[in-house]
Amino acid sequence: MKTIKDSVHDYIEVEGVALDLLDTAPLQRLRHISQLGTVTLVYPSANHTRFEHSLGVYHLASRALSHLGIEGQQAERVRAAALLHDVGHGPYSHNVEDLIHRHTGKYHDEVHDLLGGGAVARILSEHGLNPDRVADMVAGEGELGQLVSGELDVDRMDYLARDAHHTGVPYGTIDHGRLVRELRFVDGDLVLAAGNVQTAESLLLARALMTPTVYNHHVARIAKAMLRRGAERLLAETAVDPERLRRMDDKDLLVALRSNDATEGYGERLSYRDLFKRAVWAEMDAVPDDLLDADHDEIRRLEDDIATEADIDPGHVILDVPEKPELKETSSRVIVGGEVRRLEEQSTLVQALRAAQYDQWRLGVYAPRDAQDRVGDAAVRVLGLDVEETLVSDVRSGIHATLDEFQ
Amino acid sequence: MKTIKDSVHDYIEVEGVALDLLDTAPLQRLRHISQLGTVTLVYPSANHTRFEHSLGVYHLASRALSHLGIEGQQAERVRAAALLHDVGHGPYSHNVEDLIHRHTGKYHDEVHDLLGGGAVARILSEHGLNPDRVADMVAGEGELGQLVSGELDVDRMDYLARDAHHTGVPYGTIDHGRLVRELRFVDGDLVLAAGNVQTAESLLLARALMTPTVYNHHVARIAKAMLRRGAERLLAETAVDPERLRRMDDKDLLVALRSNDATEGYGERLSYRDLFKRAVWAEMDAVPDDLLDADHDEIRRLEDDIATEADIDPGHVILDVPEKPELKETSSRVIVGGEVRRLEEQSTLVQALRAAQYDQWRLGVYAPRDAQDRVGDAAVRVLGLDVEETLVSDVRSGIHATLDEFQ
Amino acid sequence: MKTIKDSVHDYIEVEGVALDLLDTAPLQRLRHISQLGTVTLVYPSANHTRFEHSLGVYHLASRALSHLGIEGQQAERVRAAALLHDVGHGPYSHNVEDLIHRHTGKYHDEVHDLLGGGAVARILSEHGLNPDRVADMVAGEGELGQLVSGELDVDRMDYLARDAHHTGVPYGTIDHGRLVRELRFVDGDLVLAAGNVQTAESLLLARALMTPTVYNHHVARIAKAMLRRGAERLLAETAVDPERLRRMDDKDLLVALRSNDATEGYGERLSYRDLFKRAVWAEMDAVPDDLLDADHDEIRRLEDDIATEADIDPGHVILDVPEKPELKETSSRVIVGGEVRRLEEQSTLVQALRAAQYDQWRLGVYAPRDAQDRVGDAAVRVLGLDVEETLVSDVRSGIHATLDEFQ
Amino acid sequence: MKTIKDSVHDYIEVEGVALDLLDTAPLQRLRHISQLGTVTLVYPSANHTRFEHSLGVYHLASRALSHLGIEGQQAERVRAAALLHDVGHGPYSHNVEDLIHRHTGKYHDEVHDLLGGGAVARILSEHGLNPDRVADMVAGEGELGQLVSGELDVDRMDYLARDAHHTGVPYGTIDHGRLVRELRFVDGDLVLAAGNVQTAESLLLARALMTPTVYNHHVARIAKAMLRRGAERLLAETAVDPERLRRMDDKDLLVALRSNDATEGYGERLSYRDLFKRAVWAEMDAVPDDLLDADHDEIRRLEDDIATEADIDPGHVILDVPEKPELKETSSRVIVGGEVRRLEEQSTLVQALRAAQYDQWRLGVYAPRDAQDRVGDAAVRVLGLDVEETLVSDVRSGIHATLDEFQ
Repeated sequence: MKTIKDSVHDYIEVEGVALDLLDTAPLQRLRHISQLGTVTLVYPSANHTRFEHSLGVYHLASRALSHLGIEGQQAERVRAAALLHDVGHGPYSHNVEDLIHRHTGKYHDEVHDLLGGGAVARILSEHGLNPDRVADMVAGEGELGQLVSGELDVDRMDYLARDAHHTGVPYGTIDHGRLVRELRFVDGDLVLAAGNVQTAESLLLARALMTPTVYNHHVARIAKAMLRRGAERLLAETAVDPERLRRMDDKDLLVALRSNDATEGYGERLSYRDLFKRAVWAEMDAVPDDLLDADHDEIRRLEDDIATEADIDPGHVILDVPEKPELKETSSRVIVGGEVRRLEEQSTLVQALRAAQYDQWRLGVYAPRDAQDRVGDAAVRVLGLDVEETLVSDVRSGIHATLDEFQ
Repeated sequence: MKTIKDSVHDYIEVEGVALDLLDTAPLQRLRHISQLGTVTLVYPSANHTRFEHSLGVYHLASRALSHLGIEGQQAERVRAAALLHDVGHGPYSHNVEDLIHRHTGKYHDEVHDLLGGGAVARILSEHGLNPDRVADMVAGEGELGQLVSGELDVDRMDYLARDAHHTGVPYGTIDHGRLVRELRFVDGDLVLAAGNVQTAESLLLARALMTPTVYNHHVARIAKAMLRRGAERLLAETAVDPERLRRMDDKDLLVALRSNDATEGYGERLSYRDLFKRAVWAEMDAVPDDLLDADHDEIRRLEDDIATEADIDPGHVILDVPEKPELKETSSRVIVGGEVRRLEEQSTLVQALRAAQYDQWRLGVYAPRDAQDRVGDAAVRVLGLDVEETLVSDVRSGIHATLDEFQ
Repeated sequence: MKTIKDSVHDYIEVEGVALDLLDTAPLQRLRHISQLGTVTLVYPSANHTRFEHSLGVYHLASRALSHLGIEGQQAERVRAAALLHDVGHGPYSHNVEDLIHRHTGKYHDEVHDLLGGGAVARILSEHGLNPDRVADMVAGEGELGQLVSGELDVDRMDYLARDAHHTGVPYGTIDHGRLVRELRFVDGDLVLAAGNVQTAESLLLARALMTPTVYNHHVARIAKAMLRRGAERLLAETAVDPERLRRMDDKDLLVALRSNDATEGYGERLSYRDLFKRAVWAEMDAVPDDLLDADHDEIRRLEDDIATEADIDPGHVILDVPEKPELKETSSRVIVGGEVRRLEEQSTLVQALRAAQYDQWRLGVYAPRDAQDRVGDAAVRVLGLDVEETLVSDVRSGIHATLDEFQ
Repeated sequence: MKTIKDSVHDYIEVEGVALDLLDTAPLQRLRHISQLGTVTLVYPSANHTRFEHSLGVYHLASRALSHLGIEGQQAERVRAAALLHDVGHGPYSHNVEDLIHRHTGKYHDEVHDLLGGGAVARILSEHGLNPDRVADMVAGEGELGQLVSGELDVDRMDYLARDAHHTGVPYGTIDHGRLVRELRFVDGDLVLAAGNVQTAESLLLARALMTPTVYNHHVARIAKAMLRRGAERLLAETAVDPERLRRMDDKDLLVALRSNDATEGYGERLSYRDLFKRAVWAEMDAVPDDLLDADHDEIRRLEDDIATEADIDPGHVILDVPEKPELKETSSRVIVGGEVRRLEEQSTLVQALRAAQYDQWRLGVYAPRDAQDRVGDAAVRVLGLDVEETLVSDVRSGIHATLDEFQ
């Protein structure tokens, strides 16, 4: 057994298959992938990595299994999956995940190829675990897979607490001690024991407050869009191929961006926080329906159109259209009056949170500071945004409509 | 200037009128009044007092005034009011407040008599402050009074953070640093600056989660009802008069209860946590409308009826009908798009919180453990609670209906 | 099993004999005995109690036993002793312990009488535990007794962490997680595993810094001396007998002092922080040798002499001569190079700490503020303190010699 | 003014010259230099950077200046120096500092060249500050320079607190709030006010405990030696020159090591924690005097000799001879009895700490795991270490002598 000091959970005891997995390259690589990517440009102390997070998820999984009384081989499988659950992340975690998916067809939780070979596969097999079944669990499949990836998984319990610790934003300070104690399996579903409606709500509320304040902070979103754009240039203009990009870590990618002229200076801009600004920031109501569903090529074409209209270099316009919000935890299950209920049925609050997520959605168009006005103007015309009655910001005139966060 | 170490705010600098007020008996008395009364019977580390809380409120008021650029005499008045805001509390803070109000006509924030004489009045006058105007401010009157008592007052910022620190329940961990920085006065209203819808929501959510988990925990409510009942006996059967009760501290009251046979053993029961149990625990829908509005005498009469029906000593039945919930902070004001808006207009979440408060409301009937069944049975009949379709717990049969918290 | 939320250890799981003991009066009484007595007059947020501390000690004992692999009946005995270890404390914990000992012959860890009867004895017996052997363990006897009371006991691990949390003074923030993990039994001695010289040192250093800053702060010492004096008057002048005093809690004692004219107003003075001041504060070198060894009667006589010399009421002079310092933890044992060594042999630091304790020792003479000068003057003469070359403070002239803490 | 959220100090207000300096490349570059270098290989959550630390030092400097009543241009100079104090660090902070010094003659606090040109020089000049004088202050020169670099500087106050927060090791949890409040200038010396002997001691003790546990942990030392060795190869075998190395950040260096065959695989080894092991670990008494003073060339020659003796590749032996320990803070000054005294005169503890530092000193010889025995054996012979009576570890035989940390 090895005991590792952690700033969030104090001591983490690593043993069994996890101890052998610890020193493999796929896991150690996570030391070089930041948990929150470009969020550190807003919260400078948020430099934590997927490695410490993976240890934390492993720790909470162990605690949950112990409270649930689950032991033996199936517990080992969960612990392995918990420790390995993030090995599929590309550089800067979620920041370039869509790009990698478009080119490789893989999201970060599709790790059959990564677990199926090399030292990881060998270690899993030595411990009597089938790599494919561990990979299934990472994807949330099976009853016990819910512990690793699901509405009540230990992944989010760790990241909320850890992100709060490292950003300094207290909203993520959940009661993970209570959460792992109150988990139960009922008819194959992972649920919270009776008396825990508030416990379940607290998890959602923590994420509901962290999302706009931390994860979707507009500066982090701008930087993320720039990073994605730089990575696209790298794929298009250099010898880096998608599979190579997928296995890079943060250091590889940033140095590659900095050392490559074809990436239009995004590497330097990101390194030294010389970021684009918002030219447009629009609520969902201001956006034409078909734009909400536009695919990557369409977005690219629109960026070019905006650039043409604004008469600037096409590389200097970024159109950022987020997915429609979803709030996975709303279907968390809690025992109420002896029955398993979905939280969304039981909790008025949860229904409101869904609506709140839509209120917070924003489309962004970003450009260098000196082109901000021209690009904003052009984007409103090209995208057909509804300026009059809703919420497009007009940066040139200083009128920020009703967008309170446009400061 | 005096610097005081505090476990929540680290260092608190006390100066000016506050420094002189610090050593007066009305303020020092707060050392002997617990912040959360009977909550310590649920959360054993919650033994903090109104004294440390008052220092914390003074501290946050000073910080807010400094950020708002308010100085001189009017700032001194706010600081004095912040420090003195709780001197009107009776023993065990809110726990016997209603009882005291019924007999003296005074709630804890009506302190004109307490500030108008003695050392406090003299010190305020020496600093050029009118005791009556400070007392007005304690009651939330006037523009600056909103800082001391209002939807965005520093009182709740301190108590949420402090209660979280001392109970260990993290839900109250708000970002008070941000809150005091973002306060603004607009047209006489205290509001939060633009970009703070989430900040305002976080304050509400913290209270929404702390209320059922901490403040209204059923064990704390049972003990509070027993304390109230004991204090009533003290007034009825001994020489203690209401004004004397109002000025007692926790130590006085508990010792008086313990040393007085007429109080039916409530003192020992509370001291050694030998508490009544829930005989009935009913949601609002199960309760006849007129019972919701019953006054004190009516409640007393119903308790007697239940005791008669259950054939036990009338002192052994407590009927606890809480007020209808209100959520004062829902009318917090935030600047959105250049206009001041009430949070309830802006935030879907806040509207949901109102509804959630109603969902959490419970009527309770409490009795000694060995009379729990009989009393529960009798109470359902006497009160006309709707057992069939709703939510009365039937303790005898072990059927707890859909009341998940009935554990 | 019952799970209790604690502000220091998060969740404490109580089970077995401890669960049954929890609701007994001797244990619940500790809710009304403050952990640090008069220290709250210096650190206002330090209102924690012996009850929450006892839960914490129980928790750390359970953790240590689990790491040590000790189970069954002997583990139950340790857990019972850990939970019960402080039931022998009188009101205000250590503050009046000497007084109680002088009259009853019992220190707080002599609890054979308290465990040997009533509900506690019955519960222990039901769990197959001999009350006398549990009481022996509370006194630190036997191999496993070292866990409860000894150089490396879990008692000090809890109180250092807890006192830091509640006072806000960070010096007590030890790594109790590591300490309980690294305990070992070697030849019947409780020791720390190899690699833990610093771990052992950290425990000593924490106490070495907390002692002058918190436990022996001069204001806490003055108030403690006043409390002791008041309690003596209670014994001398009222019907309260020593055994009754021993079983009082803080509330009983303070109310008794306040309601009894014979106690010369100490109750009010302590309640409202109207404290005596230092008339003399002298280092050990300034004090004649025989004064260091003076017994209680001699001290009383000297106080009278000083009062006569200063021409004031004898009740207004308090002479406070602390015991010579000892530092029990210096004999902690650590494995170094495969051998068990005493920390004082291994650590240069520890030897220095002993000397530092002597440097910090102070004799005090206290009196009401308006008699401070006269009493100081008289005390120097009566006690034969060495003013010239050493360190007596001369309050009248404002010359505080080299006593830096005389602020 | 800009307000930045920090996980240690909560909110940091940046204004004046600091606000303009914030977005310069030399400062933003510190985002990519870790505070503790290879320590993250021991404490996985220690990923904090020189950038957040620089903000923290700026913050504490501002607080100290405010308490000291220092304003205007000279305060701006201190704040600029505090913010810029670490811009001279090379990649991995102190880890390759000696190497860079040997080649460029510059330590990290010699920053005249870095402040004297570019955006930084221009901004300083615009604010009426002379870049050379700011650089002097970074080097600790001048009265106010003591705040930035000296025995009581705010640099160590920030790093102790920050390193504790991010490693999870509580020993660094100092009371920085008190420290910045108690600073005074007396006759040009920065001292602590009277009553702060313990405050000063606590700062030293924190560092004394953090040093062996965190900063000099043997695994961090091994990795650091490997990093240094890799960087040497980079200078020797590639086009990277010393001045380029000095201005690299962590990402540049690690990627350069990984992408360069000439660096003998150190990049991969460091990235994936495939580290050398201790072949020898010797106390100071076991080491011949002349070895303690050996220069870099001599060390290199000895490594070759050991490799030859052990018959392995010369690149696979690292000899690590640390400098003799010094404890700068021992000359901290505190006011005691109205006089300024050096802490080492006043405090028995401090004298002991000096000795303790010598006790903790270790010479290391590192090699790949499979060559550990051969290299250990060879090193003892080549270096003339005293095996018999002292403290060399014999890894082969499993006899670790009296070295308790050899686990």
